[in-house]
Amino acid sequence: VAIQTQFRSTIETPAVCVDRALMEANIRRMAVQLKGRRIAFRPHVKSHKSVVIAERQIAAGAVGLTTATLGEAEVFAGAGFEDIFIAYPLWFTDAKAARLRALLERARVAVGVSSVAGAEQLGSKLGHGVPVDVLIEVDSGENRTGVTDPHTAVRVAQAAERAGLRAIGVFTHVGHSYAGADAVAEAAADEVRTLSDTVEALRNAGHPVEVVSAGSTPTALLSAEGAVTEERPGTFVFGDRQQVALDAHPPEAVALFIAATVVSAAHNHFVLDAGAKVLSKDAPKTLDGYGTLPAYPGARIQRLYDHHAVVTCSGGETPSLGERVSVIPNHVCPVVNLTDEIVILGETGDEEDRWSVDARGRNT
Amino acid sequence: VAIQTQFRSTIETPAVCVDRALMEANIRRMAVQLKGRRIAFRPHVKSHKSVVIAERQIAAGAVGLTTATLGEAEVFAGAGFEDIFIAYPLWFTDAKAARLRALLERARVAVGVSSVAGAEQLGSKLGHGVPVDVLIEVDSGENRTGVTDPHTAVRVAQAAERAGLRAIGVFTHVGHSYAGADAVAEAAADEVRTLSDTVEALRNAGHPVEVVSAGSTPTALLSAEGAVTEERPGTFVFGDRQQVALDAHPPEAVALFIAATVVSAAHNHFVLDAGAKVLSKDAPKTLDGYGTLPAYPGARIQRLYDHHAVVTCSGGETPSLGERVSVIPNHVCPVVNLTDEIVILGETGDEEDRWSVDARGRNT
Repeated sequence: VAIQTQFRSTIETPAVCVDRALMEANIRRMAVQLKGRRIAFRPHVKSHKSVVIAERQIAAGAVGLTTATLGEAEVFAGAGFEDIFIAYPLWFTDAKAARLRALLERARVAVGVSSVAGAEQLGSKLGHGVPVDVLIEVDSGENRTGVTDPHTAVRVAQAAERAGLRAIGVFTHVGHSYAGADAVAEAAADEVRTLSDTVEALRNAGHPVEVVSAGSTPTALLSAEGAVTEERPGTFVFGDRQQVALDAHPPEAVALFIAATVVSAAHNHFVLDAGAKVLSKDAPKTLDGYGTLPAYPGARIQRLYDHHAVVTCSGGETPSLGERVSVIPNHVCPVVNLTDEIVILGETGDEEDRWSVDARGRNT
Repeated sequence: VAIQTQFRSTIETPAVCVDRALMEANIRRMAVQLKGRRIAFRPHVKSHKSVVIAERQIAAGAVGLTTATLGEAEVFAGAGFEDIFIAYPLWFTDAKAARLRALLERARVAVGVSSVAGAEQLGSKLGHGVPVDVLIEVDSGENRTGVTDPHTAVRVAQAAERAGLRAIGVFTHVGHSYAGADAVAEAAADEVRTLSDTVEALRNAGHPVEVVSAGSTPTALLSAEGAVTEERPGTFVFGDRQQVALDAHPPEAVALFIAATVVSAAHNHFVLDAGAKVLSKDAPKTLDGYGTLPAYPGARIQRLYDHHAVVTCSGGETPSLGERVSVIPNHVCPVVNLTDEIVILGETGDEEDRWSVDARGRNT
């Protein structure tokens, strides 16, 4: 029985619990592996949103942090972090530009751009006296955001320079690595090829490229030294059911689980007190149900209501009414974003501390 | 163009916006309709989690509030609300019993029980000197929690009385009313029949039944006077895409929308800055995609990432980069639970106030 299936009776359920030692080992392993490849480690904070955890990432060797929003960047800059990349093609209004100017007084902040109009908007709202660093977003096969060909990347870089911004590099998120374990290697190759083609086009057009930034936990260790200069994995810090299914995280190293109680054991199923407001309804097509119960391998979380998880069991034992069980969520990022604090467990499974999810809900 | 498609440029996106006048009309309408049927109005706070809104519900005639958790009850009792029903079969630990005892000093609090063991556990943890009111949960076809036959309800009532609790009635949640508009009438009939059968069995066994409590917005106005004594709808306060699809809420009366910005308009789609951390991934099988855009009827929110909504459009106009659009979510309860505050819009669509989602994340 792994530590993640154990928690003490003093922890009230439902609760989001983190095994501190496993989490710290996850951070160390990623930092060491990237250092060995001479690739900078810039973890995405979206998975933990916690200042205490970001501090551990920097202590392990991270060069800075990645965020998705200005609000997240404000929380971490406010806590003293000095190097932040907002990996998102924000559309800058006057209010957002004012917030970015304030951020730049506290930290080195780079932002993503993915279009000529987005670069012009940022430059115009920010004002020419503020030479912010921008990274051009490239679509490497996810079909979400980012330029889709090297020629457009060059046009965005030119627009950025005209707008008074410093186009220092490129970034991508290789979201199609999540299609399944079989898709990861090919997605990683797409990522490297797309970034390399874009870098070549930019350099041929006379643009220096300092930063070549790749993302996603499944592919973070699959980019050769030289092809990228930094990686921005997020989920690796805890791991989750999806990462295990993608062969991107060892099942024994999943550091976060939900502590839940069986509140009903009638009918042909049992019901847990951890519903969609704890587990989220994140359910990738490749996974069945809304999470797993390590102590009950035959269990399937079939239905989720706001405060109920209805679980069926195919064969084997089932837990009894009042029993406390742990649940591994499908996707850890939305789970963390639902709770104000996480319960930190020490080596004996006892509650050791509670850490604030400082940037929870900072979506703006 | 309805008010819900308009919001001013000073509101930073993504934001959860509420049209105050529409919301107040939703509350008034439900209160008046239930009063006309002589059925007590005990709205579920899970949909708004806001003290200011609960105050409006009481002012409109609500007899008290419904919550799903002790934590929600603590927030509302702390704000001065004096009559709360926790409509959930909590499993009481020492810690939860201590919290209930503290709550009982501030308010009249009733709790749900759905099993003999649950009633015994509550009585034993609470101590015999604390005669708390309990309502026995009955399954009226949802197949989730609650006793499945009148005989078991009688056994739970007897166990509750032996444990020193006051079994004052029954309650149910008719979740299968959400299967589709065609299912609502039959589900409402199931609800009334199941409650009535249980009440008859309890009375025949010598148990007085003071409270017969039904739930769900789709069926709230379908129970005849006499069959139930109170209704606990929640979602009606705002309405959402699902309630409109169930013919349970007028589309023009949906009072909550998400203000979003188009951050990418390349590829064969556009992308909004409201992702799963704003909209939630709640997607009932009966609905296509993750929400609707009133100004773009052909739009389909095809994919949701943490901070991106990928929207495709079948014919008609599409919004341009930087344009601000409103989104009606599928299910409003998880959306409200993701944000710390809601932006209140006055009659001109201007921001009038911001209200705290006081019980956000109170899942324990």
